[in-house]
Amino acid sequence: MSPSRIVETQYFTFAHPPQELILKSGVKLGPVTLAYETYGKLNAAKSNAILIFHALTGDAHAAFWHQGDKNPGWWDLMIGPGKAFDTDKYFIICSNIIGGCKGSTGPSSVNPATKEPYGLRFPVITIEDMVAAQKHLIDHLGIKTLLSASGGSMGGLMALEWALRYPGTLHSAIPIATNYKHTAQQIALHEVARQAIMSDPNWNKGDYYGKALPAQGMAVSRMIGHITYMSERSMEEKFGRKLQGKEKVGYDFSQDFEVESYLKYRGASFVQRFDANSYLYISKALDYFDLSEGSDLVEVFKNVKTKFLIITFTSDWLYPSYQSKDVVKAMKANDIDVSFIEIETSYGHDSFLVEIEGQSKLVSHFLSNVAKAVIK
Amino acid sequence: MSPSRIVETQYFTFAHPPQELILKSGVKLGPVTLAYETYGKLNAAKSNAILIFHALTGDAHAAFWHQGDKNPGWWDLMIGPGKAFDTDKYFIICSNIIGGCKGSTGPSSVNPATKEPYGLRFPVITIEDMVAAQKHLIDHLGIKTLLSASGGSMGGLMALEWALRYPGTLHSAIPIATNYKHTAQQIALHEVARQAIMSDPNWNKGDYYGKALPAQGMAVSRMIGHITYMSERSMEEKFGRKLQGKEKVGYDFSQDFEVESYLKYRGASFVQRFDANSYLYISKALDYFDLSEGSDLVEVFKNVKTKFLIITFTSDWLYPSYQSKDVVKAMKANDIDVSFIEIETSYGHDSFLVEIEGQSKLVSHFLSNVAKAVIK
Repeated sequence: MSPSRIVETQYFTFAHPPQELILKSGVKLGPVTLAYETYGKLNAAKSNAILIFHALTGDAHAAFWHQGDKNPGWWDLMIGPGKAFDTDKYFIICSNIIGGCKGSTGPSSVNPATKEPYGLRFPVITIEDMVAAQKHLIDHLGIKTLLSASGGSMGGLMALEWALRYPGTLHSAIPIATNYKHTAQQIALHEVARQAIMSDPNWNKGDYYGKALPAQGMAVSRMIGHITYMSERSMEEKFGRKLQGKEKVGYDFSQDFEVESYLKYRGASFVQRFDANSYLYISKALDYFDLSEGSDLVEVFKNVKTKFLIITFTSDWLYPSYQSKDVVKAMKANDIDVSFIEIETSYGHDSFLVEIEGQSKLVSHFLSNVAKAVIK
Repeated sequence: MSPSRIVETQYFTFAHPPQELILKSGVKLGPVTLAYETYGKLNAAKSNAILIFHALTGDAHAAFWHQGDKNPGWWDLMIGPGKAFDTDKYFIICSNIIGGCKGSTGPSSVNPATKEPYGLRFPVITIEDMVAAQKHLIDHLGIKTLLSASGGSMGGLMALEWALRYPGTLHSAIPIATNYKHTAQQIALHEVARQAIMSDPNWNKGDYYGKALPAQGMAVSRMIGHITYMSERSMEEKFGRKLQGKEKVGYDFSQDFEVESYLKYRGASFVQRFDANSYLYISKALDYFDLSEGSDLVEVFKNVKTKFLIITFTSDWLYPSYQSKDVVKAMKANDIDVSFIEIETSYGHDSFLVEIEGQSKLVSHFLSNVAKAVIK
């Protein structure tokens, strides 16, 4: 790749005591570090910035290459020169979240008060807290208004939350494959994953740093996750009943089918790349999130002037389209300028990461229109 | 209840060595015991018998009451005087399966060769093996032809398997909420449940009898199961975001939401009522099952003369209707007399146990027609 597409993760630390971040729960947290990356150039008017939010186990490395890496960032198909989030035109920022384990303050960070990793002594954080921390980063970068904010899955929730929380700072937002509050099924799937982790004796009530990791619990939680990220059809097309390195089934409890081996492999590698406690904290934050907080969703969007493009995928059963349609209805009732597209695809929830063509065109066109009005 | 609706489980043991049951894998198993119950009276011509198959964690106690019990059998809403499987007219037999833990020979049984529980030394069994064992029971009862055979989920597979394996012995069959081979997603969901059990240190490679049980692993596997047995909508209607004994969320990792507590409760009680190894064996049998064995499904039904009523449920995402529709198409190509009904319901896969009204009428009417032709 060209040297201009090499990127390094940056770190921003803020809110040193006594100016801690006051969390939604009332607990104070500080100092807070956020890992982030940027792609493209901020223009002189600082009017071309777009904030990208990642999904549950994502990180700040959304695009380009880290020196020596074999693969680019997780949304490199969407972010780059001439791509949907065009780095020739826009200044793209992707920030990691608090509670995570990819360079930002989270349960695996050292608690300055005790010099030990927080573990379960880390305060429970919410989507609102994650967004509040990222607002500090945007302020730090001297950016007063964002041209857009976008993300899939949890990232989509964060885009919606930003629009509500900082209504004057966001010209547009592109929430993808998301909803506005977790349903019973979404909470249930997360709770199973959490119970799988907490059932692992190595989890040890969150104090496993420097010891054996809760690998088995993490593997089971990841296997569940992968099933929910794909669709029934995409699993069938990819695996069907294909056998794994065998001509016939073994009549034993080894992995007979490719889909079993695939999930086991993905499960086993998960503990190497993600912190178990972070998984607990972030999944819980998702479950707590409710944009309406029990009140009328139409009321919620009353003061919002942001222009929206909302994208869903037909085969996404984890975040089904009807949830976004409810958001669209509430926005329309407030005369908010919103476009809603449900893309036909068999890739399930993962579509926002893989179903690039339809999505790219939509995003590119939408951003061009927003930019025409904003960037003089 | 009336004394006539008290029932006791019976036991039938067959195939003492050297006449063991030869399993599909080639392994010999014996002696084999099956637990079973009967309801109603076998007529003199022995022409009014209906065989009921249960689902994965079911048992022979399909209807009526065990003396002193608070609840009747698992399909009591469908089986009884004047009900769909009318015990005033028909002789209903429900047999447990080999591999199970409800009175039939399975991994928790004592291996006569070693005087120890089999554990993982129990041979892997298949749906075909379960059905073959039940054929011994029907022979033992002196029944040459069955008026019908029916079951939901795994029970539906067994009804289909019986029709193929013993084509002259079955006048009709009613497979409900089932398919003809497990898809990648169905295998994947089972494999996660198995991994959850096998990850529990108490599982101890299957040798936990008389010791601490793999309760945590069983709980996680059951939580996954419950999510798949319900629909997204039925979970939302039952639980939504209701809190569990709290006015507001706790901002901790206790159960905040009712759906979390419900699943945890159901998970925790599972190990008390079901054997972990049986769960492994039976789920694996389901995954191995493929009525077509890779060949053309139309060919499979070539010699079948059984009359079918096939029922599915709109919200059943674990065994979606399209799978049964494929079976119906293959049957129709063979001029088999098949009625197919997809019942509109929000109860998901569990519908066959709870959505009784529409199902009862269909089954009752279908059986009356079959009986008219068969019972002189």
